[in-house]
Amino acid sequence: MKLNRKDILGIQDFSVEEINLVLDTAESFIEVSTREIRKVPTLRGKTVINLFYEASTRTRTSFEIAGKRLSADTINISASTSSMVKGETLIDTAKNLEAMNPDIIVIRHSAVGAPHLLAGLLKQSIINAGDGAHEHPTQALLDLMTIRAKKGRIAGLQVAIVGDISHSRVARSNIHGLIRMGAEVRVAGPATMLPRDIEKMRVRAYTKIDEAIRDADIIMMLRIQTEREKHNIFPSLREYAQHFSLNSRNIGLAREDALIMHPGPVNRGVELSPDIADGPRSIILDQVTNGVAVRMALLYLLSGGSD
Amino acid sequence: MKLNRKDILGIQDFSVEEINLVLDTAESFIEVSTREIRKVPTLRGKTVINLFYEASTRTRTSFEIAGKRLSADTINISASTSSMVKGETLIDTAKNLEAMNPDIIVIRHSAVGAPHLLAGLLKQSIINAGDGAHEHPTQALLDLMTIRAKKGRIAGLQVAIVGDISHSRVARSNIHGLIRMGAEVRVAGPATMLPRDIEKMRVRAYTKIDEAIRDADIIMMLRIQTEREKHNIFPSLREYAQHFSLNSRNIGLAREDALIMHPGPVNRGVELSPDIADGPRSIILDQVTNGVAVRMALLYLLSGGSD
Amino acid sequence: MKLNRKDILGIQDFSVEEINLVLDTAESFIEVSTREIRKVPTLRGKTVINLFYEASTRTRTSFEIAGKRLSADTINISASTSSMVKGETLIDTAKNLEAMNPDIIVIRHSAVGAPHLLAGLLKQSIINAGDGAHEHPTQALLDLMTIRAKKGRIAGLQVAIVGDISHSRVARSNIHGLIRMGAEVRVAGPATMLPRDIEKMRVRAYTKIDEAIRDADIIMMLRIQTEREKHNIFPSLREYAQHFSLNSRNIGLAREDALIMHPGPVNRGVELSPDIADGPRSIILDQVTNGVAVRMALLYLLSGGSD
Repeated sequence: MKLNRKDILGIQDFSVEEINLVLDTAESFIEVSTREIRKVPTLRGKTVINLFYEASTRTRTSFEIAGKRLSADTINISASTSSMVKGETLIDTAKNLEAMNPDIIVIRHSAVGAPHLLAGLLKQSIINAGDGAHEHPTQALLDLMTIRAKKGRIAGLQVAIVGDISHSRVARSNIHGLIRMGAEVRVAGPATMLPRDIEKMRVRAYTKIDEAIRDADIIMMLRIQTEREKHNIFPSLREYAQHFSLNSRNIGLAREDALIMHPGPVNRGVELSPDIADGPRSIILDQVTNGVAVRMALLYLLSGGSD
Repeated sequence: MKLNRKDILGIQDFSVEEINLVLDTAESFIEVSTREIRKVPTLRGKTVINLFYEASTRTRTSFEIAGKRLSADTINISASTSSMVKGETLIDTAKNLEAMNPDIIVIRHSAVGAPHLLAGLLKQSIINAGDGAHEHPTQALLDLMTIRAKKGRIAGLQVAIVGDISHSRVARSNIHGLIRMGAEVRVAGPATMLPRDIEKMRVRAYTKIDEAIRDADIIMMLRIQTEREKHNIFPSLREYAQHFSLNSRNIGLAREDALIMHPGPVNRGVELSPDIADGPRSIILDQVTNGVAVRMALLYLLSGGSD
Repeated sequence: MKLNRKDILGIQDFSVEEINLVLDTAESFIEVSTREIRKVPTLRGKTVINLFYEASTRTRTSFEIAGKRLSADTINISASTSSMVKGETLIDTAKNLEAMNPDIIVIRHSAVGAPHLLAGLLKQSIINAGDGAHEHPTQALLDLMTIRAKKGRIAGLQVAIVGDISHSRVARSNIHGLIRMGAEVRVAGPATMLPRDIEKMRVRAYTKIDEAIRDADIIMMLRIQTEREKHNIFPSLREYAQHFSLNSRNIGLAREDALIMHPGPVNRGVELSPDIADGPRSIILDQVTNGVAVRMALLYLLSGGSD
């Protein structure tokens, strides 16, 4: 089976079959990252450009390693330190990159829809590595992969997502993917961090973490963007942590075999107490490992590969 | 034929034969950038260092892609964020790089003559990627390549260059190259942006864009360096645009088949109105594509390759 | 012979046999850096991450070139401009990198012991590229290699190290390595720059450069960290230079065949007068060349290679 898509813009319109194709392909790439020679010649001669308008070492490094393990040439452009951007529209920057004939452009941008704009204009494949508070599809795919690998299934699981739901592209992409795969999703956060029409997304919304995590199979804690939350959506980090952190006090509400996820980087003592972050139920580092595999799978499938 | 040069410092002393050699070689590399596997093993085991003392994502990316398509190892050094530079002279930095045995050093520097200084000191090949307001030979070569490909010839064409002629290394290198190849060159800009002795370069100078572009085959618009022009050489961008932008009002003065060039990034609404920048006569993106090919050609020829 | 170590953390506990193994291996790699195709497939499919919490173009470039000449994939992470670091502990950053399955992590960090912390936690090999004022083992190894190559031996040589001994990881690592290899070491610096218990390291300490360099075979000048020395350890650079620079006035005190070393970048006129830095006794650029070879040797040996 092939992925009949030019671009990866969001998880919202992915079918069950497509998600399974990506996850199955990613699982086959897990082996590549653990063998002696961690490299396959699959994308030799292909050029992958990582165009990051927001700084993100973690995601950029994951894509860069994924590209190199497939033997692609990788080019990093950090638009925050780049002159390319000066006085130039996003469209002009993209058209210029297109003219250099890369194969895939991975873009992170603070503006919702930036990757979609490029996808419509350029002949290259575009991968959305996060656009504003909209979507972060590769994160959702690596999360789905991690859940499926650990639990053997996604359908029927109770998944709690806790934090700033309104501003989280991680939450949005995961909700789409989890619902599509048959999980039940509850979200929890301060009332100011819950989108008004959240229930249209077919999730149950709570303003208390305890209600969301009760009997949950999976608890996904979102990162508080301390650098973004300057507008006093909540009074203080300390107060947020008192009400919304996952810790030894409330973890008992979840199922005994509940697993803990976080997209990273973790603010220790804010979203998670250290014992939870490092405890046996945490699968945070599995997410990171699977992130490289999912990105290898997407680069491979967008280049015409099949499972 | 081989290029009997150790370095590419400026276009001023290039012969017609040398320019044609570079352009012919570059044309053969155009094909590499569009094939399925965009890579040839020509420079395997060679190391190319991009040493940029001025930020330039565009030119650096073009050289990096050119190097990688030839299978060279590429190393980027951004001197603006580099500790190498602290308390160290350019010569010491260069001597240190030489000691690491690279093959080619691509340098951009705000000081006129910086690449020439290195070329005299180092055994490696030096490519000037722009030195102050002096020369930008790879830009001129990619411009010549684009003109030749589009018009079938360079000799006898009327080429207008419009903008801040005094401070433009793009203008200077293009004037040398165009005159050498037999084109006729007119320049236009505010009187404060025209070098006093411009006519010694065998071009005609105007202070009105209309006079320069009348019956032109090629119009080359220069980028206004908004970040550099702090010294009020002209009153405002708006006033500059009123007098020196290319737009639907004045484009009719040029030949009907006139082509529009710009080294990028374009300040839309300043040098070019958007309809001109995106119109059918614009060959701005061809310039970008040819930029990769010209840089591949130069890396190849400096490494001893022949056409 | 193989290097039976997972990590390179410091030179302090290296045996004579181990140092000789690294130096012998490095010498065999010198040839690779000067041949036509400067590349061997030894580390194909291996991933080397350069994780630099302190800016250092020189050392990072040396490691990057070393990795690429061995065909490893190299990933640069500059933590100073990285979001990875925001709100994340060093341990979490390291655990995240580990989860991406690299083979070797090269780390520079301002905190003493940072590489040791990682080495204890991660399954990957860690190379210390400088930790605070503690150790810089690859610098010491390249210095030992340079001395051995130029003098034919290390044992019995008189080596003077001059500068800010207290805050220099270069001094500390070199003292350990030189003493281990049988050299005699004298240090000189302002009294405020000499560690109180320096003589426990089996060196002789002086507060006058003349006493330290008298009859020396090797003079190693340390870089004054002008960006760090804000706390007025000495009154001014000029005064420091008057008392502790190596110049035509005092060089005559050393042996006639004395060689001059400096880890770079040189503050000309401060540690060294220009005639000394560029003179026939200076082996500063040999150090740079040997730096690439030593780092190739370490990457190779840590990957299981033998001499």
